[in-house]
Amino acid sequence: MDVEGLEGAEALVDAARNGNRRSLARVLSAVEDGSGSLRGLLAHLGPTETDAHIIGITGSPGVGKSSFTTQLVSALRARNQRVAVLAVDPSSPFSGGAILGDRVRMQEHAMDPGVYIRSMASRGHLGGLSAATPQALRVLSAVGFDVVIVETVGVGQSEVEVAAAADTTLVLVAPGMGDGIQAVKAGIAEIGDILVVNKADRDGADTAVRDLRHAISLAEASQQDWAVPIHKVISTRGDGIDVVLQAIDSHREWLATSGERQRRRVHRAKSEIVGIVMGLARQRLDELGSGQALTQAATAVAGGASDPFTAADELLAALTSGTPGA
Amino acid sequence: MDVEGLEGAEALVDAARNGNRRSLARVLSAVEDGSGSLRGLLAHLGPTETDAHIIGITGSPGVGKSSFTTQLVSALRARNQRVAVLAVDPSSPFSGGAILGDRVRMQEHAMDPGVYIRSMASRGHLGGLSAATPQALRVLSAVGFDVVIVETVGVGQSEVEVAAAADTTLVLVAPGMGDGIQAVKAGIAEIGDILVVNKADRDGADTAVRDLRHAISLAEASQQDWAVPIHKVISTRGDGIDVVLQAIDSHREWLATSGERQRRRVHRAKSEIVGIVMGLARQRLDELGSGQALTQAATAVAGGASDPFTAADELLAALTSGTPGA
Repeated sequence: MDVEGLEGAEALVDAARNGNRRSLARVLSAVEDGSGSLRGLLAHLGPTETDAHIIGITGSPGVGKSSFTTQLVSALRARNQRVAVLAVDPSSPFSGGAILGDRVRMQEHAMDPGVYIRSMASRGHLGGLSAATPQALRVLSAVGFDVVIVETVGVGQSEVEVAAAADTTLVLVAPGMGDGIQAVKAGIAEIGDILVVNKADRDGADTAVRDLRHAISLAEASQQDWAVPIHKVISTRGDGIDVVLQAIDSHREWLATSGERQRRRVHRAKSEIVGIVMGLARQRLDELGSGQALTQAATAVAGGASDPFTAADELLAALTSGTPGA
Repeated sequence: MDVEGLEGAEALVDAARNGNRRSLARVLSAVEDGSGSLRGLLAHLGPTETDAHIIGITGSPGVGKSSFTTQLVSALRARNQRVAVLAVDPSSPFSGGAILGDRVRMQEHAMDPGVYIRSMASRGHLGGLSAATPQALRVLSAVGFDVVIVETVGVGQSEVEVAAAADTTLVLVAPGMGDGIQAVKAGIAEIGDILVVNKADRDGADTAVRDLRHAISLAEASQQDWAVPIHKVISTRGDGIDVVLQAIDSHREWLATSGERQRRRVHRAKSEIVGIVMGLARQRLDELGSGQALTQAATAVAGGASDPFTAADELLAALTSGTPGA
């Protein structure tokens, strides 16, 4: 899609702010596509760091993230909070297609005007969060949602990225899936602010809790004065969701009073800025010498006439000299 | 480790070229550590694109990559070719530790002066090839190995990276592991130049061949006039290895006559140069304004006084103006 000029962009953002879902969808599509009018859109959003609380939810496939998220949304709606859910789908590096198709399970919220659900592919970034995710979170915060939930399948790097994008990160495990051991291995406990054992009516729930407690004891140093809680829930019945919500509230309170919220948001802004600068630098590198400089350098290296470090030095010098034809 | 100055580096490279393994190990450690004297080392290697043939081997855990590689090395040694094996280990983003520990299985080649085996962690790059891999391949080619094998565990992005780093990429699957389906899903067939069904004495070998054939039929367009072969082998007995070696020879021949080898090497040099330029640009960004510019910009964005695109524009302008204190 293309947003027609800055004026159209402003009208679109205003409509999204006034609750027009179709306009919001178009703004998010522009964000996802990296549309050229994106800068205009984001500039019009104004100061975008609002009070929206960003909750990250991650966990291996099969731990029940969708049903947990559905219940959490219900609990937030019961308090009359407006909630946006951004589901980041892992996609193949080849097809760009999304695998996760169970958004349908959240259909019970589909008719609620206080809930907005959106899937995004993690394009270009295998198993990780989409590069567009920070901008999408920015849009959802700016248009007035009280809580934004970002949900992703835990396959390594993505958990770390969820933690970086969220104010409060929940890591879900399920009994008997070896998740406890996985958590210790992959350091999941290091990034979770709250750990949730879902499907707690199954055998092995207490073992999972014990494994997580052990993982926390190893990771604790990184969490300062926040004691990472572990809660057992049964999402399919809604059991334990209220306790998790209380833990989320406590964490939000702690973030504000400890100064950690500000620290996380500066860290997040830093990653976002670095990502944009690197993208622009990469673009300039491709354009250098009418788009031929990089290919010529690579040909010289491949032919043995240069080495990659010397070639890189020359290109960086041309890039920073401001002479686009260099 | 640190290589003592350029003179020491030259002596080290010369010794490595003369077959001194301890010197070669030190050069590769410098590459892996990103040591400051690396540029000197690589400059002294001279034209590093030699005739060494780089073979990539990838596949899911458990398909028998190590035993296949061991047999392939034996077959290459029987022709008196010098072989280096670079095993890239997946590592956690947290620990940096290597998981793969079965190098021991290649012990039968440990005493052969014509074989060099080295493990590298895929640091900073979850499940993927180490950023240092292209440089390590460059070193191993330059010191005179006829064939360099780079082996990695296939967990998504890493297969794509193996294909990018190798002249000939072999994708291994095993019957009954759902690998056929996996291959179709993840597009493995799109990156394999030769597909190998290992453990072909097991049930399901023919199904695996059929699945792969189907995957190739979907991907074929990308392979131009090279018809991707599928071979069944039983690595533990050495059955079928000779046929795979013939296929590797045919592919090498095809690469040379079709011009594809040159195209791949230019593409590889390009990625390598871009990686170095981006690393240097990132470093300069961190150093900007006595190391404070990025933090100040992020604080402004987090506080709502700026937006990430405006901040990125300002930083890029400062970066390319050549005024380090800007």
